[in-house]
Amino acid sequence: MKKMIPEITKQQLESSSNIMYKMMKILYPICRSITGNSVRKTLEIIKNEIPIQTFEIPTGTPVLDWTIPKEWNIYDAYIKNSNGEKIIDFKNSNLSILNYSIPVHKKISFEELKDHLFYLQNQPDLIPYRTSYYNENWGFCLPYNLFCKLDPKDEYEVFIDSTLESGSLTYGESFLKGELDQEIVFSCYICHPSLCNDNLSGPVLLLSLINILSKIKLKYSYRFLFIPETIGAIAWLHNNLGRLSKIIGGFVVTCIGDSGPFTYKKTRVGNSYIDKVVKKALKDSNLTYKIREFDPHGSDERQFSSPGFNLNFGSLMRTPYAEYPEYHTSADNLNFIRKENLASSLKIYYDVIKIIETDGIYINKYPHGEPQLGRRGLYDEIGGHSDLSNLKKCIFWVLNFSDGNHSLLDISLKAKENYNVIKLATDLLLKKDILIEKENFKNPL
Amino acid sequence: MKKMIPEITKQQLESSSNIMYKMMKILYPICRSITGNSVRKTLEIIKNEIPIQTFEIPTGTPVLDWTIPKEWNIYDAYIKNSNGEKIIDFKNSNLSILNYSIPVHKKISFEELKDHLFYLQNQPDLIPYRTSYYNENWGFCLPYNLFCKLDPKDEYEVFIDSTLESGSLTYGESFLKGELDQEIVFSCYICHPSLCNDNLSGPVLLLSLINILSKIKLKYSYRFLFIPETIGAIAWLHNNLGRLSKIIGGFVVTCIGDSGPFTYKKTRVGNSYIDKVVKKALKDSNLTYKIREFDPHGSDERQFSSPGFNLNFGSLMRTPYAEYPEYHTSADNLNFIRKENLASSLKIYYDVIKIIETDGIYINKYPHGEPQLGRRGLYDEIGGHSDLSNLKKCIFWVLNFSDGNHSLLDISLKAKENYNVIKLATDLLLKKDILIEKENFKNPL
Amino acid sequence: MKKMIPEITKQQLESSSNIMYKMMKILYPICRSITGNSVRKTLEIIKNEIPIQTFEIPTGTPVLDWTIPKEWNIYDAYIKNSNGEKIIDFKNSNLSILNYSIPVHKKISFEELKDHLFYLQNQPDLIPYRTSYYNENWGFCLPYNLFCKLDPKDEYEVFIDSTLESGSLTYGESFLKGELDQEIVFSCYICHPSLCNDNLSGPVLLLSLINILSKIKLKYSYRFLFIPETIGAIAWLHNNLGRLSKIIGGFVVTCIGDSGPFTYKKTRVGNSYIDKVVKKALKDSNLTYKIREFDPHGSDERQFSSPGFNLNFGSLMRTPYAEYPEYHTSADNLNFIRKENLASSLKIYYDVIKIIETDGIYINKYPHGEPQLGRRGLYDEIGGHSDLSNLKKCIFWVLNFSDGNHSLLDISLKAKENYNVIKLATDLLLKKDILIEKENFKNPL
Repeated sequence: MKKMIPEITKQQLESSSNIMYKMMKILYPICRSITGNSVRKTLEIIKNEIPIQTFEIPTGTPVLDWTIPKEWNIYDAYIKNSNGEKIIDFKNSNLSILNYSIPVHKKISFEELKDHLFYLQNQPDLIPYRTSYYNENWGFCLPYNLFCKLDPKDEYEVFIDSTLESGSLTYGESFLKGELDQEIVFSCYICHPSLCNDNLSGPVLLLSLINILSKIKLKYSYRFLFIPETIGAIAWLHNNLGRLSKIIGGFVVTCIGDSGPFTYKKTRVGNSYIDKVVKKALKDSNLTYKIREFDPHGSDERQFSSPGFNLNFGSLMRTPYAEYPEYHTSADNLNFIRKENLASSLKIYYDVIKIIETDGIYINKYPHGEPQLGRRGLYDEIGGHSDLSNLKKCIFWVLNFSDGNHSLLDISLKAKENYNVIKLATDLLLKKDILIEKENFKNPL
Repeated sequence: MKKMIPEITKQQLESSSNIMYKMMKILYPICRSITGNSVRKTLEIIKNEIPIQTFEIPTGTPVLDWTIPKEWNIYDAYIKNSNGEKIIDFKNSNLSILNYSIPVHKKISFEELKDHLFYLQNQPDLIPYRTSYYNENWGFCLPYNLFCKLDPKDEYEVFIDSTLESGSLTYGESFLKGELDQEIVFSCYICHPSLCNDNLSGPVLLLSLINILSKIKLKYSYRFLFIPETIGAIAWLHNNLGRLSKIIGGFVVTCIGDSGPFTYKKTRVGNSYIDKVVKKALKDSNLTYKIREFDPHGSDERQFSSPGFNLNFGSLMRTPYAEYPEYHTSADNLNFIRKENLASSLKIYYDVIKIIETDGIYINKYPHGEPQLGRRGLYDEIGGHSDLSNLKKCIFWVLNFSDGNHSLLDISLKAKENYNVIKLATDLLLKKDILIEKENFKNPL
Repeated sequence: MKKMIPEITKQQLESSSNIMYKMMKILYPICRSITGNSVRKTLEIIKNEIPIQTFEIPTGTPVLDWTIPKEWNIYDAYIKNSNGEKIIDFKNSNLSILNYSIPVHKKISFEELKDHLFYLQNQPDLIPYRTSYYNENWGFCLPYNLFCKLDPKDEYEVFIDSTLESGSLTYGESFLKGELDQEIVFSCYICHPSLCNDNLSGPVLLLSLINILSKIKLKYSYRFLFIPETIGAIAWLHNNLGRLSKIIGGFVVTCIGDSGPFTYKKTRVGNSYIDKVVKKALKDSNLTYKIREFDPHGSDERQFSSPGFNLNFGSLMRTPYAEYPEYHTSADNLNFIRKENLASSLKIYYDVIKIIETDGIYINKYPHGEPQLGRRGLYDEIGGHSDLSNLKKCIFWVLNFSDGNHSLLDISLKAKENYNVIKLATDLLLKKDILIEKENFKNPL
């Protein structure tokens, strides 16, 4: 028998952050893309830690309005100058290849070469991350400083040992069955090569979350997606159309390893249950945070929140993608991530789940005037929690608003009191048989 | 034939404030509690001024979730040191006894005594007010400075000549019948011994309000409760369950004699008719004030607004209980109260009633375009009120929004104009037969 | 075949502003009033530029709650002192006569004269504008400085050569029929003599607007009223009761030639379609502006928005009447108006119409996930508008919110993006057959 969802401990957070950072180091060197063996290898490594089911969808399969593309694999790539010196070597950085480059091997002039080179004039030391998934092309990415040193009169040998052929798209899914069928979805993407905050922070956080949740008796079911961005979300939606009505809401998990404050991007409707839960978890955390409205840009919330599905997907990040200078460059590396950031991100996600799991609507059995608490020993119970100066207040909030219309989350928001204390007050009132749970509060939607 | 509710005059306010302060001086020396002869004597004194009906509910009677407690009476109490000197003498301050102390007479060590002594380290010169209604105990309250002077090695004689026996709980009720059955309730408590702002300011204000209203022909009915806090509200609710549906709303009247700005604590729903009226009365007063949301703490609004009743009770105070340092100490005495504060508090309560009494929905009989006012002599009428620069504007507000959906209160809030001028504009338009009263606007709920 | 509503060009604005200012100069010298040949002459001049139908309603005709007054015409007026010198000469300023003065010719003392003189002590050099339409009287308006120079002991000859007799009230109407019967009304007043911002700026702007719109194929119908204030609006409403249900909303056009920022006075309901359109047009203009709530004062919105009609009339002005010192004085003259102000006011009105004409609700045909835009060449289309950095974002806004519940205007407000770019994004998506127009979106009300 598993225990009801407890507070996450410091110890759990510390050991989880070690595992998260270790996993990030293991996954970092793989040159991931939206298809190919790199994805399979990534999922294999994750599978060593948590149960995960993988799916393969063949090239050419129609998925919603899209088609599964050819599978891409890369083995080697370089540019040599006429002296035979390797100017750029894929072995030094996965980012140095335009992701999804077709194979090429030829000698070309600088004129021809430079249309295939990508760099950042404003960040001259960094290698940018570029892709060309749906437009067959080849190219290299390099620091602008290196680009400037290239001799325009020289001849260059370009070599890309890649394959772009029929194959399949791979994704992984992990599922924790709770007492109820209704589920919360956590989605991360696994298609970026050697990029830490905007990519690997998501999978490693989910890995730790699954580890912790799998030891707990859960009320709701939880699904975790490890998918290539965009096409993976579209493929997953296509394959799970019949199951979408079970989804209460979800999260796109990314950019949660940097040192910025939290940013929550709300769901499309803007006042969903998910939004209220996150707002309260952030508020109670005493950390700084910002909440912003939904917009139809960004990551896979674009697909989950498309108007035909309109699923309540939010995105709880630290610094959002494209809003930090290291984004999509070689600077979004292992040094950019801090273990303690991963730990506090994990805690917020856990606290969000804790609210979802423990929320409910209760009915005050003595709604006419206040029930006499002293007679029932409630004041002794309060005395037993003398560290919680607001427990008594919370008891009166719960009593007054447990009228069948307010859930514990609603009451905690109205009272501007910590959710955990509202929950504790509820537990004490339940113990004294003053509250009863409202039947059929199974789905907060 | 009584007159329709007029403006309250300066003279009325001055004479009322003299009566209020005089009554407070008469009531101050009584050692009130939630039951006993002190409550009876308090009500007897009030009865000399206004008609009041008193009720007695026997000890042991179940009321809602509670039971009427034993009746408490106190006659004398002191502590003597071994030299026979009275260290504390109940005759010097009603606060020096723990309210509801059981009888005791014995010699005890300082060790034993000190568990029965209550003081305020942060306010060392003041005697605190403490009670133990539902937990049989005895004790004394004293200044911390006096406590420090007690000899820990001495032996002390403690004497409390009290009775805690079967009896009854006493409360009083005054009722002014209006044209309609619907009623507004004003509730104050009469259970605090020798405390002025948090307690006596309420009863003396109601006394003056009843005096003034009893000379006026009223539209609504008004009920005034003089009850012990908590148990009295519960007992009254229990005895009046069949009448609650007549209650439009009400007020818990307390803390209205100090010099702080007004604070209005809204009703549970937060946008009731009562809330709108008070907001407008405060706005029009040009005094400073704050409006705060309902919370399920505080005074008897906790009972009236419990979810099973959900009556619209607000609390219009000056400085709220527990938010001024004199609260529940010997410093909340006659010097803490100023007559002019009582007077302006009385005026606000009167103005609240004035809005309730005169509000209504009227229908513009000429809603298509503006009616031609000149032809009807309206501009001459406006000229007759040349001191009211906004009267003409108010006439157009009333004309435009007397569409059957807006009461005068609504219009005055929308127009941000003084309610009295909106009312005057309405009277002029009625006189010229441009408006008619909407039938069946009998209850603003 | 006319073209769909295009952007207004700089050239159009420049030539329109020249016409507007020229027309203002032509109309300025006429001593208009609410009836009489001056109104006929004004409409005749306007008729030279645009098609306009004129209406005559006989004196004595009942209109709503009013009656058409006698017709007023003025030919000459002066005051002479005893030396036979003209102190005030109507020929020098149309404002010098109390508008609607009855005829008079007599010699009177200063004592009697001064009750018929109107001046502004605070603006001693200016002649005020005064009327006495519904109260038979005579009078002269003059600068306070001139008033001070009058000899109180002198005798004065007053002469007013006017007629106030049975006749008719005249107003004009221009109508542009669109594809739909639903119409937008633009109303201006033509009753002020020699006043530019508060009066003539309205008619000349409408004249240019009609000129431009008449060359365009329109979706909605547009009606333009040239009426005397108040009584003209009442007469027009009276004559058009059966047509009011076709009116989506309208504008009272006045005070749009001064140099102040725009002020929009909202419609009575405060959140009508008209209000949303103006808010967006102003926002997109990058000009400074203020938006204020409806009040039942002001100009003819008082009649159109009276509760029996409750038409959605807003007022998009620059500095509102009575809020600039030149208002209703001889200083509201041709020098107070600037061509470029008229031009930018015309542009805003045109942009408002452009939004109304092009707004619609569209349905995303591929609402499940994002449609694959690359495959359809959408990215090439976006590339063709490289000056519009937000076009791609707007495409995703349109895709996500074209769910049948949001019009383009709604989407542009939600996205905080320029309406024109939202419209362009929509056009590209329509071209690629990704959107279809929702049937029966004919009336935004």
